[in-house]
Amino acid sequence: MVATSSFVISLVFSSCCFVLLLGVYIISSRQPGNVLIYYPRRVLLNEDPCTILKSRGPFTWATEAWSATEDELVAAAGLDATVYLHLFTAALEIILLSAIFCVPVLVSLSATSGYNAMEEKMNPRASFSGFDNLSMGNVEPGSTKLWGFLIGMFWVSLVTYFVLWRSYRRIVLLRIRQQKSAIARPHEFTVLVKDLPKPTVHETQSDQVDSFFRMVHPGAYDRCIVVNDLRKVEKLYKELEKTLRELEHTEALFELSKEKGNFKRVRPMHKTGFLGCVGPVVDNIHYLKSRIRELTSQFEEEQKRLLETEESNTALVIFNNRRSAAQAGQVVHAPHAPYWRVTPAPEPNELVWRNLHISAWEHWLRKIVVYVPTFLIVVAYAIPILLVASLLSLRNLEDILPFLKSITKHKAIHDILQSDDDANAPSPSLINGDTLDARSGTSTGRQGLLPQICLLIFLALPPKLMFILSKAEGFSAQSRIVRSASAKYFYIIIFNVYFGVTIFGTIFANLSSIKHMVDQDQFLVARLIRLLGSQLPPVAMYYITYIVLKFCIGYGFELSRLVSLTSYHVKRKFKCQAEWEKFESWAPGAFTYHQSIPNDLLILTLALCYAVIAPMILIFAFLYFLLGWLVQRNQALNIHVPDWESNGSLWPHIHHRILAALLAAQITAVAYFAVKEFLFTPILLILPLLTLVFHVYCKRTWRPLIERVSLFMATEEVTVQPSTTTVVAAYTPIYLRADAARIHDQASTQ
Amino acid sequence: MVATSSFVISLVFSSCCFVLLLGVYIISSRQPGNVLIYYPRRVLLNEDPCTILKSRGPFTWATEAWSATEDELVAAAGLDATVYLHLFTAALEIILLSAIFCVPVLVSLSATSGYNAMEEKMNPRASFSGFDNLSMGNVEPGSTKLWGFLIGMFWVSLVTYFVLWRSYRRIVLLRIRQQKSAIARPHEFTVLVKDLPKPTVHETQSDQVDSFFRMVHPGAYDRCIVVNDLRKVEKLYKELEKTLRELEHTEALFELSKEKGNFKRVRPMHKTGFLGCVGPVVDNIHYLKSRIRELTSQFEEEQKRLLETEESNTALVIFNNRRSAAQAGQVVHAPHAPYWRVTPAPEPNELVWRNLHISAWEHWLRKIVVYVPTFLIVVAYAIPILLVASLLSLRNLEDILPFLKSITKHKAIHDILQSDDDANAPSPSLINGDTLDARSGTSTGRQGLLPQICLLIFLALPPKLMFILSKAEGFSAQSRIVRSASAKYFYIIIFNVYFGVTIFGTIFANLSSIKHMVDQDQFLVARLIRLLGSQLPPVAMYYITYIVLKFCIGYGFELSRLVSLTSYHVKRKFKCQAEWEKFESWAPGAFTYHQSIPNDLLILTLALCYAVIAPMILIFAFLYFLLGWLVQRNQALNIHVPDWESNGSLWPHIHHRILAALLAAQITAVAYFAVKEFLFTPILLILPLLTLVFHVYCKRTWRPLIERVSLFMATEEVTVQPSTTTVVAAYTPIYLRADAARIHDQASTQ
Repeated sequence: MVATSSFVISLVFSSCCFVLLLGVYIISSRQPGNVLIYYPRRVLLNEDPCTILKSRGPFTWATEAWSATEDELVAAAGLDATVYLHLFTAALEIILLSAIFCVPVLVSLSATSGYNAMEEKMNPRASFSGFDNLSMGNVEPGSTKLWGFLIGMFWVSLVTYFVLWRSYRRIVLLRIRQQKSAIARPHEFTVLVKDLPKPTVHETQSDQVDSFFRMVHPGAYDRCIVVNDLRKVEKLYKELEKTLRELEHTEALFELSKEKGNFKRVRPMHKTGFLGCVGPVVDNIHYLKSRIRELTSQFEEEQKRLLETEESNTALVIFNNRRSAAQAGQVVHAPHAPYWRVTPAPEPNELVWRNLHISAWEHWLRKIVVYVPTFLIVVAYAIPILLVASLLSLRNLEDILPFLKSITKHKAIHDILQSDDDANAPSPSLINGDTLDARSGTSTGRQGLLPQICLLIFLALPPKLMFILSKAEGFSAQSRIVRSASAKYFYIIIFNVYFGVTIFGTIFANLSSIKHMVDQDQFLVARLIRLLGSQLPPVAMYYITYIVLKFCIGYGFELSRLVSLTSYHVKRKFKCQAEWEKFESWAPGAFTYHQSIPNDLLILTLALCYAVIAPMILIFAFLYFLLGWLVQRNQALNIHVPDWESNGSLWPHIHHRILAALLAAQITAVAYFAVKEFLFTPILLILPLLTLVFHVYCKRTWRPLIERVSLFMATEEVTVQPSTTTVVAAYTPIYLRADAARIHDQASTQ
Repeated sequence: MVATSSFVISLVFSSCCFVLLLGVYIISSRQPGNVLIYYPRRVLLNEDPCTILKSRGPFTWATEAWSATEDELVAAAGLDATVYLHLFTAALEIILLSAIFCVPVLVSLSATSGYNAMEEKMNPRASFSGFDNLSMGNVEPGSTKLWGFLIGMFWVSLVTYFVLWRSYRRIVLLRIRQQKSAIARPHEFTVLVKDLPKPTVHETQSDQVDSFFRMVHPGAYDRCIVVNDLRKVEKLYKELEKTLRELEHTEALFELSKEKGNFKRVRPMHKTGFLGCVGPVVDNIHYLKSRIRELTSQFEEEQKRLLETEESNTALVIFNNRRSAAQAGQVVHAPHAPYWRVTPAPEPNELVWRNLHISAWEHWLRKIVVYVPTFLIVVAYAIPILLVASLLSLRNLEDILPFLKSITKHKAIHDILQSDDDANAPSPSLINGDTLDARSGTSTGRQGLLPQICLLIFLALPPKLMFILSKAEGFSAQSRIVRSASAKYFYIIIFNVYFGVTIFGTIFANLSSIKHMVDQDQFLVARLIRLLGSQLPPVAMYYITYIVLKFCIGYGFELSRLVSLTSYHVKRKFKCQAEWEKFESWAPGAFTYHQSIPNDLLILTLALCYAVIAPMILIFAFLYFLLGWLVQRNQALNIHVPDWESNGSLWPHIHHRILAALLAAQITAVAYFAVKEFLFTPILLILPLLTLVFHVYCKRTWRPLIERVSLFMATEEVTVQPSTTTVVAAYTPIYLRADAARIHDQASTQ
């Protein structure tokens, strides 16, 4: 029972961390000086800090989050955030409904069995924790009790279908409420047209678009905006902005030093060469001002050029009514070639201007090119995970690198690295085909804290990289980039955590026996599968500690915003001088969906996969999503401010991945039931087929209702219709606006 | 070299059959009495039989077929037939371009190797035909020559992509030419709306449709036709028609007997009971007349009921311009639930009236229900094929059923059943892991004619059954039924011929060695794969004889129409009395796509899969498609008359299956190169990925252009626009027409 105690230690440690972080939140969120960190969204809405803090108890955040309705969430954080929060609701529903059957029935079935005890008798090296006795591993192979687990798998699947179906319907209704209540917005009148053919020599691109759309949409076409390649002007704009900010910072610093009567009172100087280390010394302020003059003229020149020429194959087409725009966005326009691809326009904020000129062909090519590094990362990220997995069974590592023994012989170090691995010597019985017994592997020793923290850190790194890769693919809408990045990270996380830990972990743990098998030329795939299968229940305990760590530390940090809080106060104290710096020190930002969605989905995947094999995991997964639900709702209500809105386009993405998780669970179940020598295992093969059918059903029935605007909605009477000028203004990128003024004014005063 | 000689015998036999059938065609097609069989399409166009036959040489059919342009084909046989014929063009292009590299380069690479000879020396039981030496099997494992084959696989893949891409473009252009030239047709103004919600109590279904469409398509909506459940009226109509025909037949028979002054001159009588064997004797003519009166009143009652009530959830909606109809067919209408599913209406002839009232939900359910028997047939059809495969190696059969020896010891019987199997004793070396040698299997003995004819007959049976199953799924359009039936038959044929013959054939051939392995508990998947892989080149020869048999006999019969010719003359002589019987005896019918497409695709699959492994197959596949191209063009020009037109919707179906065949070829290549111990085999893994990318590209870019009507085309000026009355008349099923007259008139005269 060593393993259980180390498991409990790990749970206690995580809980303590959480209580600590909750304490930090409760205390610091009531300091008026921290209002900008804990209620930035409300500060941005010009609420008074005192009213915000007035009459708030230590748990007001939780009750507020609990009682907020969906419509309130949409009003506060937008539809996308609400859809993301619905992931938690759906997960809670799935887990709760699954647990109703799985926890009481299956756990008692397991607890009344005695396979583990028998194993321990047969093989003195095998060791099982008390926790292991509550999982399917404790049931005797071929026992009739397995029927209960089979029914459990069906129950979990049906529950998931039901919840997913209901969620889809709910999201669709939510979207419609949103569309109905809203005043008509510019994107409802606009479509994005890509892959325009080259115009003839006698006409400009906009002439061509004009005549084409006037013909196919008589009476409804209003005007078009041809979108040029904006990369150069964007670059100049950003550089100008950066230089202006630098100037502001330098001037503020200089003023400060004058006020304080500080030492020297000299104007700040720097060297112009590489990294400010070489080259002639110049006066910072003078230098920056001249650089701004230079950039401004370059920028204005480029802006003028862009406004005069039309060299692109992309245009935004504006209609004078919503119905025509909705129709145009869904219809094939070109007769016989891949030209005139019309799609509904994303909202202005959501457009990725620098990617708009990219043709479908180039977009394809970019996608394929990006596919290569993504694939490599998915696979190669297994290497650090492999190292982690090898740490999991330190004893094996010591076998390979004997010098480690001299380090780990110190009890303290050893304990942190690995709680126990006395029982983990690979069993020689593995090699004898008849009495194949793979349970003696490791896995009971996987509750060590260090490897898990390791894993958490490793998995926090890739999202940013994935986002950059997805951006390079050339999508026109921010939400597409986020979805693509999220999909990539989901692959990494599932491949590495779910498959990686189980498969590589088992292989490493049994390294010497596998080596022995290979040496003797008796390496059999069937035996390997059996070995992997038998590892499933013990691994569950590892995942439970992972889940607990994740919600205690993860959501603890999320709620307390410890990192933001510290950096805010540090920056305030030592760095911030200019206005923009002050704002940036507390700017709340939006949800980083591409990071959080895959992480949450991973927990749901683990819960679904182990719902039947080790039902106790459901309780911890439930706690994860419950805490997540509260914390993220609080974040949505008080902190994050969305940069853009894609009107719920995230749901199909989430839906598909939950369904994929279910499929993984079903396939795992088939394999594990087979390992358990259950005669009726083939009945389980119905489930993957059902999942497939459900997937196609949802794709055909519900997805179009989220991806497109129905004609019925588009025909609704509009109360306030934006004028053409408003729409055109909304769809003019900031670089081309006359009111790139903020920069111009500042630049002209120099 | 026994095998080669039996291979030659089989080729000679097939060729003789073909020459014979060609002779039959040349002679009988020039008899004026056979004009109705060989030129029915032209007779139906009221061409004079004499002008048809005048100045036709014996090979005019071939030159005519050769020189017909695509537009002529469209005019004569419709777009669907032209698209089907394009399958032959595409296959010819793929095979020819592949052969340019594969035949000269790869065959010479194989011919200059000597692995087979070495094998024969090593293992005296192994025997290879001269033909086997021209295949990749003859190249030494791990040899650098394998690079040539690797390049060959890339070449074949690239060629296929190129041809498929060009074909898609061609079909799209063809479709557009067709749309442009045509006078506007009723289906261009119509959409099909399914899953209407229940109307409120205050309105009828058509009121509801009216108000909805008037709102979302203001100004463009014309009127709607609510389609009720027509199954009962269809049944009554068919029964009435059948009884009328029976009466006509009986009367004609009676007249004839009167004229001829034949024996008895009694009126025909029959018993009314079961199968005309029991019950009271009645006068046929009287009985039929009273039955007709009864049916007519029932039919008219049902017709009246249908015209008065509206109880269905399906409607046809007619617009007053093509543009609006084209838009409506592509746009989501309902705001938030799976209602108001609008799709472009099929042409009136293509509609399956009895399925129109089926809701999407029921359609789904039916699809799933039909899936089960389909799956069982796909798998269970392997049983007869397995028997065939077991016949292939008679010796093994004799091992199992020793009494067979007493039959097959007669030389003649033995020779027909199997040309040779002296070399086929399972090699004991299989069992020793080190000197694993699987080549000694059988397969050289697979050229026997009997098993192949067996296979041909077995595979001719399922298409009709698949058609019935697909019809039961509840599709609204004939072309969808045909495509679904074709897909099902394609699975059967590929699963059974391609996988079945190779895998089951090999297993049966090596039954005793496999049994030995299993007995000794040494059954290894890796060995089995290696065994299967090594069987690939020898099986090629079996497939070549299959291809030759198929095009000689298959297209020989197709061209000579021997079956139709015989049945025509027999019926003429002994049976036909009534007008409808005379017509039915020569009615040409349409192409049976669901039978011919999978068969042609099978040959293409074989050609692609063996293009690199045994390149000689390309020559025979080329002959198959060349002959098929000529014969089917002739059939399109002179014989078949289409029942309906789906405007080229068959091409995506064909395209996907060619691509699937290529994928199968690529996966086969990966496996076989691995068996050949080629170090750079992983390079081949790029190809399946490329295929996937190409598939997605085509699906996104080209498929919408075939499945939908582009707005540009729909906006084209219409020269002749059908009136609303014309459109409504076209979309009134024959059972509800006032001119169900043909029947009414006849019925009322009784």
